Amino acid sequence: MCASNLNSPAQSTTQDFATVFARLKPQMRTLDVYLRGEVAAFEPEIREMADYCIDTSGKRIRPALVFLSGWNGSDQPSPELVRVAAVVELVHLATLVHDDIMDEADMRRSRRTAARQYGPEAAVLLGDALFAHALHLASQFPTTEVCHAVSDSTRKVCAGEIVQTLRRGTTNITREDYFRVIDLKTAELFRISCFLGGKLGGFPVEFVESASHFGRHLGIAYQIYDDLADYFGQEKSIGKTLGTDLLSGKVTLPLLVLLDRLGPDERAVLVDEVLRLREADLPLRLRQMVEFDVFAQVSAEIEAELVKAETALAAYTGLAPVPLLRQLCDTLRAQVGSLAVPPGA
Amino acid sequence: MCASNLNSPAQSTTQDFATVFARLKPQMRTLDVYLRGEVAAFEPEIREMADYCIDTSGKRIRPALVFLSGWNGSDQPSPELVRVAAVVELVHLATLVHDDIMDEADMRRSRRTAARQYGPEAAVLLGDALFAHALHLASQFPTTEVCHAVSDSTRKVCAGEIVQTLRRGTTNITREDYFRVIDLKTAELFRISCFLGGKLGGFPVEFVESASHFGRHLGIAYQIYDDLADYFGQEKSIGKTLGTDLLSGKVTLPLLVLLDRLGPDERAVLVDEVLRLREADLPLRLRQMVEFDVFAQVSAEIEAELVKAETALAAYTGLAPVPLLRQLCDTLRAQVGSLAVPPGA
Repeated sequence: MCASNLNSPAQSTTQDFATVFARLKPQMRTLDVYLRGEVAAFEPEIREMADYCIDTSGKRIRPALVFLSGWNGSDQPSPELVRVAAVVELVHLATLVHDDIMDEADMRRSRRTAARQYGPEAAVLLGDALFAHALHLASQFPTTEVCHAVSDSTRKVCAGEIVQTLRRGTTNITREDYFRVIDLKTAELFRISCFLGGKLGGFPVEFVESASHFGRHLGIAYQIYDDLADYFGQEKSIGKTLGTDLLSGKVTLPLLVLLDRLGPDERAVLVDEVLRLREADLPLRLRQMVEFDVFAQVSAEIEAELVKAETALAAYTGLAPVPLLRQLCDTLRAQVGSLAVPPGA
Repeated sequence: MCASNLNSPAQSTTQDFATVFARLKPQMRTLDVYLRGEVAAFEPEIREMADYCIDTSGKRIRPALVFLSGWNGSDQPSPELVRVAAVVELVHLATLVHDDIMDEADMRRSRRTAARQYGPEAAVLLGDALFAHALHLASQFPTTEVCHAVSDSTRKVCAGEIVQTLRRGTTNITREDYFRVIDLKTAELFRISCFLGGKLGGFPVEFVESASHFGRHLGIAYQIYDDLADYFGQEKSIGKTLGTDLLSGKVTLPLLVLLDRLGPDERAVLVDEVLRLREADLPLRLRQMVEFDVFAQVSAEIEAELVKAETALAAYTGLAPVPLLRQLCDTLRAQVGSLAVPPGA
């Protein structure tokens, strides 16, 4: 599929993550009940805080990957799938709690962040406690495999976030650097979600390996999409302000593409904006993003990753999870397409 | 043993933690080599940072508890003991990295804290990565038992720290509240160190259980000692400023005892100081600590915990670890005793 047909408003209205996820409603309900039950395992003094963090308004993409990769046709997921879905979601929630401290974010999903609600000091520890509980659940499997995989992935996620943090406000970043960071900070947890879902769903080891590759490339595609949406999103539907990455000195793929396209003088000005030596001219940058067709180049990269993801599953079209996982790729294509629609169209 | 004989300068010069730990030099060297080797397991981008955090100047009390509880008479610890010593130390180091962010501490052990060296944002994630790697090592044991124990303990440590953080600048704290917090934030990791040391040392389950109790009470005693040293320590030898707990609004046992002893009017003033409604009169509080003999009352509590710790081991005097573990109690007694010596004596 070429990048151009991503630009279809029809797709964006008929298909989005909600469509695929609608099939997972029973699983997500089971997961919610399970997570709420786990709050009782926290020490009484911090239960309310843990409960606050385990809110139900998130997208729950990682648990969805677990359920889809382990799908056996039944709406009633096995207790093992539910537990491992909880593990990956708790790790993700822990990283969100810590991210919000670092970004000094006040709101997430229309409510106060944990850092705002309980103070950054308590939020550091609350993130730790969520993460510790994730590993505690992981240790309830008969073997150490889940602990091993989840702790290894978590270290990678942290490494990716650290590198990204330390690179803020610098411009000597290559495409390889960018891809390395999103591989660690986002794709790793997508990958492990598919790996563990397939594994605990009882699928053959070759499929589990392929599902891992699928998850990794879907994760890379998803993060590039997220970075693209920071410049091309519709503020109302995405619920955030455009250009926050530029304003915070964070160089993502759209900016790398724009830097490539600008002449030397204009590039020097943009570099100064990233280095925060001068105020960013956001309206100009947003216009240049359109002018130089950054969208097409970036969405081509997304498409390349989605093709890799689909190719990883090509040998297993007969297995129950595969049509659903592939549908996720189409869903993401549609979401990318909807970004191309000018605001108000 | 009554509290009064804690006050013996002779003990404090002949016996301190260094004496017991001198026996553990070969084990600690093995641990250091092992930890340095583990740095290579971190992603290349964060290896230098991980290496910085795994410095060798710490007291290594928790690894010592592992080695002593698993002691079989040989100086060459088993690979399992070394690994589990690394696990508990990494968890401890992770909590220190996060503590230093919250306390906005610039220095620890005569060098910059990770938060000061790499910025608080990177330090949050670095602590996470250290913790994740601890769990990764824990998952290398044949069963999930170590993961289970360590993740559960870590959540308790976090819960204790959260409660302590949220209680700063409040005075409606009972002794029970105080003991609950130190049980979680300090005693839990001491307990699990002894538990896992005894377990992996191959000792009978009854002893392992008793070593657990020993570790817990030693941990409570150690934390009370640490809180006492904040008011009675000798600034030079302890290397920190006295009274920092009062200045940061943290109510520990010495302050609880003093609040009990003061008349209503004076108590109201001290309460205001804790609430930070007025500046703390630190010299007055230090004089009152002596005047009302807070030292004797607090050291009696330490002694009570040490007796509980020793009693837990009473049935196992024939086992190799027991004389060494009991020696730790005497060592702590000597350290408490040395606090009673007036500065300059």
